[in-house]
Amino acid sequence: MYSFTNDYSEMCHPLILENISKCLNNQYGGYSSDSIFKALNQKIIKLLDNPESQIYLFSGGTQTNLVTIKSVLQPYQGVISADTGHISTHETGAIEACGHKILTIPSSDGKIYAQEVAKLCQSHFEDPNFEHTVQPGMVYISNPTEVGTIYKKSELEALIKVCHQYHIPLFLDGARLATALTSKENDIDFKDLAKLTDMFYIGGTKCGALFGECLVINSPKYQKNFRYIMKQKGALMAKGFVMATQFDTLFTDGLYFKIGQHENDLANYFSAQLQSHAVKMFQPQATNQIFPILTNSKINDLKTNFDFQIWEKISADTSAIRICISFMTTKSVVDQLIAAIIKE
Amino acid sequence: MYSFTNDYSEMCHPLILENISKCLNNQYGGYSSDSIFKALNQKIIKLLDNPESQIYLFSGGTQTNLVTIKSVLQPYQGVISADTGHISTHETGAIEACGHKILTIPSSDGKIYAQEVAKLCQSHFEDPNFEHTVQPGMVYISNPTEVGTIYKKSELEALIKVCHQYHIPLFLDGARLATALTSKENDIDFKDLAKLTDMFYIGGTKCGALFGECLVINSPKYQKNFRYIMKQKGALMAKGFVMATQFDTLFTDGLYFKIGQHENDLANYFSAQLQSHAVKMFQPQATNQIFPILTNSKINDLKTNFDFQIWEKISADTSAIRICISFMTTKSVVDQLIAAIIKE
Amino acid sequence: MYSFTNDYSEMCHPLILENISKCLNNQYGGYSSDSIFKALNQKIIKLLDNPESQIYLFSGGTQTNLVTIKSVLQPYQGVISADTGHISTHETGAIEACGHKILTIPSSDGKIYAQEVAKLCQSHFEDPNFEHTVQPGMVYISNPTEVGTIYKKSELEALIKVCHQYHIPLFLDGARLATALTSKENDIDFKDLAKLTDMFYIGGTKCGALFGECLVINSPKYQKNFRYIMKQKGALMAKGFVMATQFDTLFTDGLYFKIGQHENDLANYFSAQLQSHAVKMFQPQATNQIFPILTNSKINDLKTNFDFQIWEKISADTSAIRICISFMTTKSVVDQLIAAIIKE
Amino acid sequence: MYSFTNDYSEMCHPLILENISKCLNNQYGGYSSDSIFKALNQKIIKLLDNPESQIYLFSGGTQTNLVTIKSVLQPYQGVISADTGHISTHETGAIEACGHKILTIPSSDGKIYAQEVAKLCQSHFEDPNFEHTVQPGMVYISNPTEVGTIYKKSELEALIKVCHQYHIPLFLDGARLATALTSKENDIDFKDLAKLTDMFYIGGTKCGALFGECLVINSPKYQKNFRYIMKQKGALMAKGFVMATQFDTLFTDGLYFKIGQHENDLANYFSAQLQSHAVKMFQPQATNQIFPILTNSKINDLKTNFDFQIWEKISADTSAIRICISFMTTKSVVDQLIAAIIKE
Repeated sequence: MYSFTNDYSEMCHPLILENISKCLNNQYGGYSSDSIFKALNQKIIKLLDNPESQIYLFSGGTQTNLVTIKSVLQPYQGVISADTGHISTHETGAIEACGHKILTIPSSDGKIYAQEVAKLCQSHFEDPNFEHTVQPGMVYISNPTEVGTIYKKSELEALIKVCHQYHIPLFLDGARLATALTSKENDIDFKDLAKLTDMFYIGGTKCGALFGECLVINSPKYQKNFRYIMKQKGALMAKGFVMATQFDTLFTDGLYFKIGQHENDLANYFSAQLQSHAVKMFQPQATNQIFPILTNSKINDLKTNFDFQIWEKISADTSAIRICISFMTTKSVVDQLIAAIIKE
Repeated sequence: MYSFTNDYSEMCHPLILENISKCLNNQYGGYSSDSIFKALNQKIIKLLDNPESQIYLFSGGTQTNLVTIKSVLQPYQGVISADTGHISTHETGAIEACGHKILTIPSSDGKIYAQEVAKLCQSHFEDPNFEHTVQPGMVYISNPTEVGTIYKKSELEALIKVCHQYHIPLFLDGARLATALTSKENDIDFKDLAKLTDMFYIGGTKCGALFGECLVINSPKYQKNFRYIMKQKGALMAKGFVMATQFDTLFTDGLYFKIGQHENDLANYFSAQLQSHAVKMFQPQATNQIFPILTNSKINDLKTNFDFQIWEKISADTSAIRICISFMTTKSVVDQLIAAIIKE
Repeated sequence: MYSFTNDYSEMCHPLILENISKCLNNQYGGYSSDSIFKALNQKIIKLLDNPESQIYLFSGGTQTNLVTIKSVLQPYQGVISADTGHISTHETGAIEACGHKILTIPSSDGKIYAQEVAKLCQSHFEDPNFEHTVQPGMVYISNPTEVGTIYKKSELEALIKVCHQYHIPLFLDGARLATALTSKENDIDFKDLAKLTDMFYIGGTKCGALFGECLVINSPKYQKNFRYIMKQKGALMAKGFVMATQFDTLFTDGLYFKIGQHENDLANYFSAQLQSHAVKMFQPQATNQIFPILTNSKINDLKTNFDFQIWEKISADTSAIRICISFMTTKSVVDQLIAAIIKE
Repeated sequence: MYSFTNDYSEMCHPLILENISKCLNNQYGGYSSDSIFKALNQKIIKLLDNPESQIYLFSGGTQTNLVTIKSVLQPYQGVISADTGHISTHETGAIEACGHKILTIPSSDGKIYAQEVAKLCQSHFEDPNFEHTVQPGMVYISNPTEVGTIYKKSELEALIKVCHQYHIPLFLDGARLATALTSKENDIDFKDLAKLTDMFYIGGTKCGALFGECLVINSPKYQKNFRYIMKQKGALMAKGFVMATQFDTLFTDGLYFKIGQHENDLANYFSAQLQSHAVKMFQPQATNQIFPILTNSKINDLKTNFDFQIWEKISADTSAIRICISFMTTKSVVDQLIAAIIKE
């Protein structure tokens, strides 16, 4: 039985464990006052070519989202998101539990667009009873999105322009950022993220780390007093150096991007093979998530040897499934899955 | 420079890393649906001899506290705590940020006592305007306490009796539980905690783990829907198996208690040596935290080779410092510190 | 200049002031411990023929909604509402500020239906990752709705049946209840509300009171500790007897229903007259809100002598306006408005 | 039976009702867009001689406190208050329910002093782990205090100086402001409050209004977006003009201060008479609350004809009671109470 359910089913990339092992006899400062953290911060700053960027380490994505959003919004503000956004659908109301409404924009491709954000903001501020409605205070997007699509550079440029016109920041959830930036369709450099977002996070949990997400806030305006909120929400880890070591490993010799490339290569290959056998896709594949549409009986057969998520019912007889390629997935096991799918 | 500042300055006990290494090629279910977690749960149940106990894994102590307390309290209820309690002093208002008042009881030894809790509860329910004040809904204690003292079995028995009389649960914060249960003064078995508390947590971060705390809820009443709140607060980790592996290691061959014993042995030794040289203590030493009172000039001298926390100013010339023994601390470095302290 | 903007533009029905005047030299208990309140409670119980009903007095609608919803929901639960619901659109995120998501159902007529609620609940509980999504915990409806439509008895019967199947209560916002229950289309008795809802409120602010809403909770299950939450949210008024006197007046000799009938009669008349002159309506008129579609130039003309709300742009040249009839509106002023509208 | 329990046991001052009666046929704008409100605002500005002051009307004190405090604090900030402060003791955790800790200062006279606030602020900002503790973000005081004492002008001058040194505002709860400013011990003019506070409220509920409190924010810095929070917390009343009319009445011909003077005169008289008969006081009397210490048997006797609150047990045989003089209390009934107390 091999699981394609997720990219977080294995411990971590071996190099990460190796690097932690080397440090067993060292002592480090608590709460990210350690030297590894400081060096990592410098490394990220250099890659982004933005000396004002500052990193913050978190243990998981929902936590990163809720702390970041809470730190920005005033009590009467909400965060704009696609209705498919992770914060809107799969975080058990974490944002609302922080007191804020999510102002959703209907989306079919997982993305939201500049003109939609502009319309929503304009409509609020033009309302004579604006104090009776929630003020837009931030924009949240995911790249790749929850359905595996990615943003184009021009789309982010348009988005942040609108955001800044309304004096609100743009936050990019990069839970699977490695796969977005190494997608065949991508035209965004890591460096661009310093300019295309006000804050974004570099996902570790779904990209080969034991755990951990690295938030980057690009402007000092949003950094002030941020750590208070981390602590208040239980997100300021005593042993921050455990996460710092992991991200330092991921950002040494481009390991983070190699992991993304590995996953995308296998996903591209898988996708191409299936399409050459006339398997239809629920969403065009851009990253490590592939959504083939199969008959229910085929899906049942596959379940004997493979595990994966059933994404959505398509017709009485067919469903879309989600195949997720991980940093540990090999071409060999992908070939086995292909064979099983195309077998009569 | 050796740091006695904390017991969370080093990565982790070597056995933990060894065990994670062995599992690099395995796949596990997400969000604590994995087999290691299930086995760990059985192990804890067996040790507690309480089949109804259920474990939940968290990435840190503040998070464990806030999720647990939030899960129990109704909106109009508060949690009773010593005014020295970690939730009251050092979690940036995490409990209040969840909407709840902390009903503090003044404490000089870090503990609260049954009769104090009874008085507070009685005074609320007897108030004809009780709806104008916060209803007591839970009791929070730490063992060891924030000042290194520990509870006696009889004290916990009296506490939980009062709690249950008022239909509220008793929650024990065991951030350093290993050192409490192996203290020279302790008369509580691990097993007793199933009966002496409604829920407690087994601290990992401060007892040799890379990170992680293991909450045990002893009664199904408080388990229902608990995971919703974990998820909502960003505490439900995708790779729960990373924590499960660590706690499985700590609860194999009694490693957890060996770590506590090691720390206490060195602390007892250090404390005895100092007292034999007439050094006074701010608090009697029971666990791995020792609070010697030294002259400020001596403290300055020590800072050349050692790092530690200055706890409290005692007089114009003297202060109490905190020496914290970790799972990696050796007798040799403790001897160096003793020598430096008693040197004229 | 006469304003048809709202039904809350005048002080109050003269009888209310008269009754307050009579009591100037009396003394009353604070926080609704007074005798007028107790008598009012008995009166409502009798009208509902439900001895278990209990009333609670509030100063406004948003406050009533947020306290009631907060009192019912667990932290991980949300409230189901039409996307047009007042709590969703015009209360500045009051529910989210209490920590809860609003689970919206798209609506064109302001109503939600039993099968929609059933589908939403079913979909949550069948989700294998249900703990990652917000649990439905309550249903909120308005009668009349925000667009002036009203519920049929059979619709409420179906709704509460589904609610109870999922063990969640049905809450009816009756900000303009007087007009719903006296609508030409209504088939619900006041008495029915004890069985058709778990809690509902009798709107005073928009039905002739100086201020105030009277919440009725029909089941003891939801009454317990309710006043704590009222106090915590600043809703427990010291001089509860001021509101009690007002509602006592409104429920003496059926004044409340007479007010509703007066408003509906004028609205029916206005609506009929306009339709006989071929004026189209944005929504069919059922209560005291009428939404005629007029040309923009006609709207501008009307603004010389009348005030009203422009509801929605319909085409380049036309818009729907909202005419709201109040307890003080006379047939004479309605005739003036009709004349102005139908004038060439 | 005559009740001295409270100053909110009667409807309202007759002039208030008279003025509302005169306006029954008028129409007013909703949500404090009305003309009475605007005129009232100008009147208050003129009395304060501070053109930047802006008023906001609320239905009750707890609501005023929670909205004002919520509007100022960042999520990681708390409000400093005497431990006897109303927000700390008798509002069911309203501030904590908004997410904020109350940083209490122990007080025996109901007041807090500049040096105490300075010490608390300094101690926070000097803490190397300051992000682990709640940041002071505001100071809350009551005048008169909950035990009937009042602030001296010099004390407020010192307080606001410290507040501004730490860039936090000073908020004065004036639930019974009329009696503070007309106390025999008072040296503060109404006008001074524009300079001695950043915001304060003029209590109506306890000073002769049907209901209502008038918050004054003296600086535009704290006014921005304030109404959003009022609406979100259910405090923005549709018929704001009902409150505006009341406060307009109270601030016509100095009625507000006449009410305070009336209450204080009777309280001074009562207090003097009792002391001339050697009755001891629990707190020195300054305003309309008097706390005589009586034997329990005397208290029981009095209960036959009078109602009042038993404040605190003093010894086995004696207790302090609270006598509260209202705007409707007459010298005649006070004389009856005196006679009953001094009767052998």
